Amino acid sequence: MVGGVTGQSTTPHVVVAPDSFKGSLSAAEVAAAIADGVLAAVPGARVTLRPMADGGEGTLAALAAAWQVPLRACSTVDAIGRPTTARWAVGPGGRVGVVELAQASGLPGVRDVELRPLHAHTRGTGAVAHAVLDAGVEEVLVCLGGSASTDGGAGLLRGLGARLLDSAGHEVPDGGEGLARVESVDLTDLHPRARQVRWRLAVDVTNPLTGEHGAAAVFGPQKGAGPGEVTFLDEALARWAGVLERETRVAVRELPGAGAAGGVPAALVAVLGAHVERGVDLVAEAVGLPAALADADLVVTGEGSFDAQSVRGKVADGVARAAAAAPARPPVVVVAGQVLLPAAQARAAGIRAAFSIAPGPVDLDDLLGRTAGRLRETAAHVAALALGPGCQGPPEGARA
Amino acid sequence: MVGGVTGQSTTPHVVVAPDSFKGSLSAAEVAAAIADGVLAAVPGARVTLRPMADGGEGTLAALAAAWQVPLRACSTVDAIGRPTTARWAVGPGGRVGVVELAQASGLPGVRDVELRPLHAHTRGTGAVAHAVLDAGVEEVLVCLGGSASTDGGAGLLRGLGARLLDSAGHEVPDGGEGLARVESVDLTDLHPRARQVRWRLAVDVTNPLTGEHGAAAVFGPQKGAGPGEVTFLDEALARWAGVLERETRVAVRELPGAGAAGGVPAALVAVLGAHVERGVDLVAEAVGLPAALADADLVVTGEGSFDAQSVRGKVADGVARAAAAAPARPPVVVVAGQVLLPAAQARAAGIRAAFSIAPGPVDLDDLLGRTAGRLRETAAHVAALALGPGCQGPPEGARA
Repeated sequence: MVGGVTGQSTTPHVVVAPDSFKGSLSAAEVAAAIADGVLAAVPGARVTLRPMADGGEGTLAALAAAWQVPLRACSTVDAIGRPTTARWAVGPGGRVGVVELAQASGLPGVRDVELRPLHAHTRGTGAVAHAVLDAGVEEVLVCLGGSASTDGGAGLLRGLGARLLDSAGHEVPDGGEGLARVESVDLTDLHPRARQVRWRLAVDVTNPLTGEHGAAAVFGPQKGAGPGEVTFLDEALARWAGVLERETRVAVRELPGAGAAGGVPAALVAVLGAHVERGVDLVAEAVGLPAALADADLVVTGEGSFDAQSVRGKVADGVARAAAAAPARPPVVVVAGQVLLPAAQARAAGIRAAFSIAPGPVDLDDLLGRTAGRLRETAAHVAALALGPGCQGPPEGARA
Repeated sequence: MVGGVTGQSTTPHVVVAPDSFKGSLSAAEVAAAIADGVLAAVPGARVTLRPMADGGEGTLAALAAAWQVPLRACSTVDAIGRPTTARWAVGPGGRVGVVELAQASGLPGVRDVELRPLHAHTRGTGAVAHAVLDAGVEEVLVCLGGSASTDGGAGLLRGLGARLLDSAGHEVPDGGEGLARVESVDLTDLHPRARQVRWRLAVDVTNPLTGEHGAAAVFGPQKGAGPGEVTFLDEALARWAGVLERETRVAVRELPGAGAAGGVPAALVAVLGAHVERGVDLVAEAVGLPAALADADLVVTGEGSFDAQSVRGKVADGVARAAAAAPARPPVVVVAGQVLLPAAQARAAGIRAAFSIAPGPVDLDDLLGRTAGRLRETAAHVAALALGPGCQGPPEGARA
């Protein structure tokens, strides 16, 4: 009964590529619920699951799930130096290692104490990266986002063996505090493989390192920085950029995305030759989304809130661009906890339609409590409408 | 860019046939908002508006709007005999008159006083019907539903000139109270045209006149009847059915739908030869829905709450059946304030998909305050998904 909408096949192919629903379900759980609904409505469909992430928190889990590799753990320190454990992963074949900054150096990990915006650092993530290099990978994918720090990536570099020295040749303190005094970088003890591997930084913002759109001004306040501290950190990052440029001949101050995660790209681009990439595109490639879309008839993505941010580098945007690049240009439909973006703006961004999973007037806790069931129902309606009989040609009754 | 989904035309034809959203928008307002959304998403679409009703309250307004005839008014009495004004209408050409029982004899009209379930009557609606007959129509369409009374239609008959007598030949009181003593009906002064015209009763329930599923047992409590009064009314209706059967040789006690509106069909079927019809089907025919659906590519209906009742004789059900009977069998999509019916049950009832207009977690008052805007947005998404490029054949990019 159900025909393929492209007319090339009688089995419609549906690609399910959602983000996680924060505070509710992982991307894999969201994808499973959507797939359930699609299959309930169109039992003959072929459904391909590609749980997604945008390079921020949850990306490590999404990649590990997509690759079917286990998460590994290592002991390290959190953003204020307390012992903690961080997860990381190595892709199939051992070629690509994944480090998620939020694991060790994330803001949630230090929410139990008063925020220390000048002191917080990424040294713990550097220790994780050290372990990943020890595993022998050829490429390291660093998922930025969710950081507690504004240290320009200095901590990450130090975790890999670098030393930051002041004018007297003494090591400076961790965090932005230290950047304000840094004079040179000593790479003598840098991990021997650090400059041999390819570093790819998954970033979901385009902010520069410094200035009014920079790491300190835009993201500092959410990390606890008051106006004076924002100014201090901005100047410290500028000094750090000057040191990096003097030592490496790489200019990072105006680099788009250098302001991500408290400026982490600055150090990694200058010292390690890292590439800044749009997180969602990097994830899409890593999980094989483009290949899955090649013959797709319908793409269902989703996220907790579908709003103006969604079409600026988040998962829905990445999926829409990937679908637009696929030969069949399959329609992309969003199912979301809430749909705030006007329909016209969604279509302009390549999203065919977007539906909330809310069944009617309902409060947030109620909806959070039944996200999976509502995803399944909403996806069933979407699949029935997009793929059901009558949508791709004369229906049964008109064929006689 | 937008192709007709049946492949027969490049202009998709969308029929918009919603119910009213109670407490928020009339059916015509709902239809206009949905049409706005459809045209925003698919500017090339041809949109036909067929605001619907199920035979209950709102049907008169929906029919007058569809026919583009004015509402008329007459002075009458409410369900407890107080002066009131009721609306009625005559269709194009003067052939069909429409009486809506809830206008004069509705429950909302007597909510300001203590309910009097034994006394409430439909005499006021009889006076309206009298005026409609005076207008010279050949057919009277009586929309039942929303009644305050349980009088077996005795009041309506009396408003047309009939007299209900007790064993002593005296007129009995109005309401169920009188039925308990009725012995015979005197039709001497019945409106001379009452038995010449065709009476069609729009009913949305299948309850019989009496018994455990009857008018008193099922609907009495919501009209204020306690257990003792329910028993009294049930026995009174049974006595009334006996009198009617004795005088007319028409048995009405087990007639499906005779229990509608406090038993109004009993008197009208027995004495006037009225036909009991499914309200939504009668309205569909009256507004020309079947003709509009003949070449439809998509049908959008809607109602405040899409639940189990919706697919049992309400507007969504009537629209789905009409669409299934149309040659092209166009898909039917529901947009609703809340969607409570599981997707599988919706599909089993001929509804392709159903979406709530809620954009996410939201409270009822907030949603009621922006029903039109949310209808427009939701309809835009539905139309884009159902009619957009890529859904009816190889998309632009694949045609080369």
